[in-house]
Amino acid sequence: MGGDSGPGVVVPGALDAAREMGLSLILVGDETMLRGELSRSDTSGLDVEVIHTTQVAEMTDKPSDVLRRKKDSSIQVACRLVKEGRADGVVSAGHSGASVACGMFVIGRVKGVLRPAFAGVLPTVKKPMVLLDVGANVDSKPEHLFQFGILGEVLARDVLGFAQPRVGLLSIGEEEGKGNSLVKETFDRLKASSLRFVGNVEGRDVFTGDVDVVVCDGFVGNVALKLSEGLASSMAKVLKRELMSSWLGKIGTFLAKGRLRSFARFVDYAEYGGAPLLGLAGIVIVCHGASNPKAISSAVKMAGRFVESGANDHIKKALDKHKGLGG
Amino acid sequence: MGGDSGPGVVVPGALDAAREMGLSLILVGDETMLRGELSRSDTSGLDVEVIHTTQVAEMTDKPSDVLRRKKDSSIQVACRLVKEGRADGVVSAGHSGASVACGMFVIGRVKGVLRPAFAGVLPTVKKPMVLLDVGANVDSKPEHLFQFGILGEVLARDVLGFAQPRVGLLSIGEEEGKGNSLVKETFDRLKASSLRFVGNVEGRDVFTGDVDVVVCDGFVGNVALKLSEGLASSMAKVLKRELMSSWLGKIGTFLAKGRLRSFARFVDYAEYGGAPLLGLAGIVIVCHGASNPKAISSAVKMAGRFVESGANDHIKKALDKHKGLGG
Repeated sequence: MGGDSGPGVVVPGALDAAREMGLSLILVGDETMLRGELSRSDTSGLDVEVIHTTQVAEMTDKPSDVLRRKKDSSIQVACRLVKEGRADGVVSAGHSGASVACGMFVIGRVKGVLRPAFAGVLPTVKKPMVLLDVGANVDSKPEHLFQFGILGEVLARDVLGFAQPRVGLLSIGEEEGKGNSLVKETFDRLKASSLRFVGNVEGRDVFTGDVDVVVCDGFVGNVALKLSEGLASSMAKVLKRELMSSWLGKIGTFLAKGRLRSFARFVDYAEYGGAPLLGLAGIVIVCHGASNPKAISSAVKMAGRFVESGANDHIKKALDKHKGLGG
Repeated sequence: MGGDSGPGVVVPGALDAAREMGLSLILVGDETMLRGELSRSDTSGLDVEVIHTTQVAEMTDKPSDVLRRKKDSSIQVACRLVKEGRADGVVSAGHSGASVACGMFVIGRVKGVLRPAFAGVLPTVKKPMVLLDVGANVDSKPEHLFQFGILGEVLARDVLGFAQPRVGLLSIGEEEGKGNSLVKETFDRLKASSLRFVGNVEGRDVFTGDVDVVVCDGFVGNVALKLSEGLASSMAKVLKRELMSSWLGKIGTFLAKGRLRSFARFVDYAEYGGAPLLGLAGIVIVCHGASNPKAISSAVKMAGRFVESGANDHIKKALDKHKGLGG
């Protein structure tokens, strides 16, 4: 039921992913609306179930209120399906705070995980990279950041397919010993681990493609993510304004439009679809409210890859292996 | 003596600013090199003094070592000139850590300032904005962040010429009460002040031009600044790669090149030149090591405007007025 356009975008996106990966879908929400959407699509050969719910998490609801008072909201029911083993993961374009709350308290955490973290999958010059935490937590401790490194490494390996992900720590200087007190203590833990730790990385290194996982506090990561979105969209606006301000610019743009479109894809969040909340006994992927069907499809496929690769088992094993470092 | 290209870039840049604003220059460094550079330029009508120094802060030097052991380094001598009242400010493209250390301990602070802060002047869709602190401090306290608001407001007013600068607090949600504990406590102080406080702003609001001053901790600000530089340069690289990958793209680029150049200016740090270290009893502006003469000229003009507007008096008055809030 989530997203600015509701089931009209979510249903076709989900069907597309199910078709491509052979996934089974459970659509949770208002049955009449969902069946209506389904009737407009070709669902032959697909395994699609609809579960009716009567409540919706509104943007004005507090996450804790959704959790306590909206037991029959689509997000809470979807999370309960995971808890009960009837589903493996949840994709939502709705209230992100409610998705986090229901993920944390209805599904619960993988044993050993201290704090689930939101991972941002961002484009770089070469290939995607993982930045985490991008906002599930504020005021994190070193043991939390260390665990974010483990969660991100598994995502990069299992979902993005990198053989030996390079893990960096976001700081304000590359040398060991640079940064704030949180970063300095986290550095020592990451250095002592078996992760492929490449040390501190700076803001400018995030988009070069030379590091696969960048670990940071949720406050810093959320600022970084939204700043990137804001800057990319401002740059696109300025580029368009400049190109359209002269006839030569317009003709040039017309000729180069195929190439400009490839450029636009670089800054298109829909390529990766959503931010996975890692560390849950299942998976919750939160999509942008303005998601289009392609973004939803990407997010559902990400959930599919996460589950099929056995990522949560890998997280459990990595946490066991690093017990002294991660809390 | 600073910058990747030394006096060959710094001297012509400084002369250009002196000519434009009628400033008096003191060039501090190796006299032979500086006189050599001056002989290549037309200095008629300009007031230029050269002060010879025998030492240089090397990139491998620790800031504290420059301070203690290189008393005759160009940066330390330049700061001493300010302390002694023989100069009003310092512009350097050299060792930024050494510039900060000499600024703090040789020049000293404006009375009442707890922590000097680096201000980044960034382009937006509409006009420049001030982000601070971008890295002079880590592990800041609420009273520090509050003072950053005052420092940034004066810069925006006196140097950028905004009549009533809007001050925002960088956080991860717009509503009051969102953010980490540092942000929440700073919010209350800014709200109680006479600054034109617009509340929390998110990363995506930084580049819209709807806020003039954004306050944050030096760790977050430094990450944000370098991330922006990194993303802008990655986007420019991808744009170029895409445009050059087809004949139509190349022809289009040729036709639109004037417009593309205007776009490039949007991401050109040289427009603003350098980062002022605010809160000193004088002013130190630190330029990028890769600065070109235009960037140096912009930085020297910024120093000139800072001094001519009486910015430090305005900082003193604002701190007096808000004594209970800022430390």
